[in-house]
Amino acid sequence: MAPVVPRPEAAVTLRPLSATRVTGGLWAERMAGNRAAIPVVYERLVAAGHIRNLRIAAGAESGTVEGAAFRDSDVYKWLEAVAWDGSGHPEAPALTRVIGAAQRDDGYLNSVIQVSGEQPYTRLWSSHEHYAAGHLFQAAVAAARASGDGGLLDVATRLADHLAATFGPHARTELDGHPLVEMGLVELYRQTGTPSYLELARHFVDTRGYGRATKPGFDPSHYGDPAHYTDAQPVREAETLSGHAVRAVYFAAGATDVAIETGDAELLAAVRRQFDAVRRQKQHVTGGVGSRWDGEAFGEPYELPPDRAYAETCAAIGMLQWAWRLQLATGEAQYADQVELLLYNAVLPAVSLTGTEFFYVNTLHRRTGARGDLQRSPANGRRPWFNCACCPPNVLRTLASLPAYLATGTGDGLQIHQYAASSVRAGEFAVEVDTGYPWDGGVAVTVRAAPSREVELALRIPAWAEGATVDGKPVPVGGYARLRRAFHPGDRVLLDLPLHPRLVLPDDRVDALRGCVAVARGPLVYAIEQPDQPPGVILEDIRFDPAAPLEAEHRPDLLGGVTVLRAAGVTLIPYFAWANRGPHAMRVWIPKV
Amino acid sequence: MAPVVPRPEAAVTLRPLSATRVTGGLWAERMAGNRAAIPVVYERLVAAGHIRNLRIAAGAESGTVEGAAFRDSDVYKWLEAVAWDGSGHPEAPALTRVIGAAQRDDGYLNSVIQVSGEQPYTRLWSSHEHYAAGHLFQAAVAAARASGDGGLLDVATRLADHLAATFGPHARTELDGHPLVEMGLVELYRQTGTPSYLELARHFVDTRGYGRATKPGFDPSHYGDPAHYTDAQPVREAETLSGHAVRAVYFAAGATDVAIETGDAELLAAVRRQFDAVRRQKQHVTGGVGSRWDGEAFGEPYELPPDRAYAETCAAIGMLQWAWRLQLATGEAQYADQVELLLYNAVLPAVSLTGTEFFYVNTLHRRTGARGDLQRSPANGRRPWFNCACCPPNVLRTLASLPAYLATGTGDGLQIHQYAASSVRAGEFAVEVDTGYPWDGGVAVTVRAAPSREVELALRIPAWAEGATVDGKPVPVGGYARLRRAFHPGDRVLLDLPLHPRLVLPDDRVDALRGCVAVARGPLVYAIEQPDQPPGVILEDIRFDPAAPLEAEHRPDLLGGVTVLRAAGVTLIPYFAWANRGPHAMRVWIPKV
Repeated sequence: MAPVVPRPEAAVTLRPLSATRVTGGLWAERMAGNRAAIPVVYERLVAAGHIRNLRIAAGAESGTVEGAAFRDSDVYKWLEAVAWDGSGHPEAPALTRVIGAAQRDDGYLNSVIQVSGEQPYTRLWSSHEHYAAGHLFQAAVAAARASGDGGLLDVATRLADHLAATFGPHARTELDGHPLVEMGLVELYRQTGTPSYLELARHFVDTRGYGRATKPGFDPSHYGDPAHYTDAQPVREAETLSGHAVRAVYFAAGATDVAIETGDAELLAAVRRQFDAVRRQKQHVTGGVGSRWDGEAFGEPYELPPDRAYAETCAAIGMLQWAWRLQLATGEAQYADQVELLLYNAVLPAVSLTGTEFFYVNTLHRRTGARGDLQRSPANGRRPWFNCACCPPNVLRTLASLPAYLATGTGDGLQIHQYAASSVRAGEFAVEVDTGYPWDGGVAVTVRAAPSREVELALRIPAWAEGATVDGKPVPVGGYARLRRAFHPGDRVLLDLPLHPRLVLPDDRVDALRGCVAVARGPLVYAIEQPDQPPGVILEDIRFDPAAPLEAEHRPDLLGGVTVLRAAGVTLIPYFAWANRGPHAMRVWIPKV
Repeated sequence: MAPVVPRPEAAVTLRPLSATRVTGGLWAERMAGNRAAIPVVYERLVAAGHIRNLRIAAGAESGTVEGAAFRDSDVYKWLEAVAWDGSGHPEAPALTRVIGAAQRDDGYLNSVIQVSGEQPYTRLWSSHEHYAAGHLFQAAVAAARASGDGGLLDVATRLADHLAATFGPHARTELDGHPLVEMGLVELYRQTGTPSYLELARHFVDTRGYGRATKPGFDPSHYGDPAHYTDAQPVREAETLSGHAVRAVYFAAGATDVAIETGDAELLAAVRRQFDAVRRQKQHVTGGVGSRWDGEAFGEPYELPPDRAYAETCAAIGMLQWAWRLQLATGEAQYADQVELLLYNAVLPAVSLTGTEFFYVNTLHRRTGARGDLQRSPANGRRPWFNCACCPPNVLRTLASLPAYLATGTGDGLQIHQYAASSVRAGEFAVEVDTGYPWDGGVAVTVRAAPSREVELALRIPAWAEGATVDGKPVPVGGYARLRRAFHPGDRVLLDLPLHPRLVLPDDRVDALRGCVAVARGPLVYAIEQPDQPPGVILEDIRFDPAAPLEAEHRPDLLGGVTVLRAAGVTLIPYFAWANRGPHAMRVWIPKV
């Protein structure tokens, strides 16, 4: 029960597991909040007219459709969240039937295009019909994997067949301005085994970068730069990502899917090179990507302004999806480190402690007295909804699928990548993980079942975890501690990851961060927020003494229970927990004294 | 022959002069280039369809109009440039007749709205019909003042009468989303004496800030923030400017015009307070304003990123117009200092040495290898034109009217504010100014005619000019050296403004500039550009030693003749001269060693 289940013949090092459960701790709390948010977000989809669009297209209601052509995708993401969450929603089955009823006889499906009478696929650079289709594919695969419900899968395959008949090397060659369909098609191929879906995904990946996304009817007065459409350079040639961040990372993740399923080592090398360039030059300390509001775009290398960080929630989720695919492909701990960084510091900050309010833009610095509109601006804190509502249901489906990222299996054992109170099973090998992580670095892994032969238990040792020990013995960081033996039920392995607060210095080439320092502890990036500072102290006036000792204190009463850090009168909270006490000044990077 | 000629009863300290001429030096060269650019820009207006729109509306041609409804304004700015320049253009008279022929019988005039059949004034938040009208008024006043040609003035008054009959406290109360008409109406009032124009301007000023710019048909999905329309707060209450920078400064300049003509001390105090806040918190070291690409907007206080500085050319021109009005109103040298800063470092950098290529966005840092689209991005250097072509003709009209900013008169003498080889006359008092400024700080003022009574010759001593002397005697900086005596033809006053290179340190609250330093000499801000550095040195790797001595050398062969500065192997050029050798890396703020 996980997104990304490579075919048996796929070129992967690690295999996802389907039975991982989170049993307690921070992630259990946040997943419970996410579950409670599912019906709330459904009501917002109703209020915003998303459901009505589909009902009109299905003939269940009359009227005119509202909003952009890619709106259906928000509904599909919500259905995907319901599927991964597993607790169901009373309206989900009926909604699935409405979607099926809305679909044209020839398989085409898009409520806004159909009802408005617009010709399909005539302005893919802005309609994003492929993008919406890709989200349907992901939702359908989730429903099929999670509950065996194939209703949405039938709709998805009919639409995918229509796409495969309409686009390709011997048919129409335009591309959608917003990638995503590549991931969707590969997932549908994984679930159904239909080769044409993989072939179409490969076609979309290989023909991008030649200006095909900006061909028919394209209006160059807005975003004339092909990079805005991830269309400036072929993927095999690109050294880094640029332009619209969400589009670029979704595309890279889709290209990684194609590389995995086709065993394309050249393509995998290209996306690994790009991931490395983004990590070194274009990623905020929180893991978020995207430096520019204008065009929601990556900036130049080392252009990482904390105050104007865009770091769109969807871009963080795309990075997570990309890192996860690279992790499966390579088995390298660096990608699992990225998954951890992104989950705690780029995805989690996008949602309120209540689970129901969201950031679209994840700033690293909100100034005292900042003001902004009630849409994307983070000045007013998280919002219930946005005119472009891509982010909220994206958070929902991601948190609902969170257990998938914790562990993987191989024929030879299991690998634990993310630490949380959880139970994990890979075939005959099952363990229980007990930990107070991320507040406490002690992790106990208890074997519940094991094969009689020798197997390997691999435990990720994060790159930041200097001094880590396994059963009291020091282990190197930035890789896996691998224990190979015959395990027996009741065996227990004790991992200790020292959570000493640490200073993070910016790269000297990042102009916007010169003279500043950030603070982290374990997997968490910290921030200063106004309510925690002494009365009368203005946040902008705080200067941080890198020599001052940092002390940690767990505060069960604060912000749902967090460990705060203190140094020379300055109090820091985990970045993810900011903006839960009203809109206040906050900063991650603090000027040094 | 100057923009802004207050009525005799207006509340001003200084009066503009009509006979000032620039006779040599840098400004004479740039005005000659500007004159040569007038026919070039006319051809671009033809090619872009601007002239055709008006000809279609006039019935001189058939077809459909193209572009935004405010497009006519670019034509009006070009006509204003022709008027101030004074050398004429063969198509200007015919164009004036076309505009008159396009005007409806009831006085309404807007080619795009008329030809498309759209109802006038139904979407002022985006059509900007008032804005275009204001530019017509300014052009018409320029034509009347410069050459006595009242043809355009007749068109302007008929449109202004239509506006005054349609809008006002007892008529329609919506406001244009883009201010400017306020300045235009006051200028038209100054020229014609018609009180209803001033009354309408005052009405527009006083009713702004209550959401009237975003009322009818407004689509909140784009720029839902009222600040984008300078409509978030009444002008008398605002402490600073925010939102769209051009709109905000045009509005502030128009409010200053209203304050001057109505003697409204409260209003003048409000705009002075706002100017001071902008200067302290929201102005780049170059004088440019606007920190955000998104919404072309002011940022929060101290949000001044050099790499993503928007600093739109039109915003610099609006700041210049605002500073000039405050200078006339108050007579304070601080505003003349701003006029100087803006002319050399915010307006002049927007145009190439050839006079024909323009920046829309004036960055303070172009990175090595930067890329961007061929529209507003400064990565590719100055451009001949833009889809939204507001900036090029705005530069033209500003440089054509440049002599107006050099000096003023009072009943009691004359004041020289800007130093250039020039001749100045205020009534019976006439002087000639000889100087190699801004390369040389020596200024000789020779009296050519003088009244027999005692009068005052006031010479601005810029705030940066420590060590300045008049006739060898030290004078305080940041004000005026005032010489009161009976002058005689042939009398000569020698002013010396020491042009020692100096370091500029950023305010510690500007996060984006921490650890950096800028360099200035006299009125000029300097920059490092790649072509001047030793081979193999990458611009981003340069670190500046604030203790290294700075040496100046005049290079007649370089960039049309500039004084370069050198310090410890680093060469600096005047910021205004960058990007004339192809697109290269450049930065104004340099990290310290």
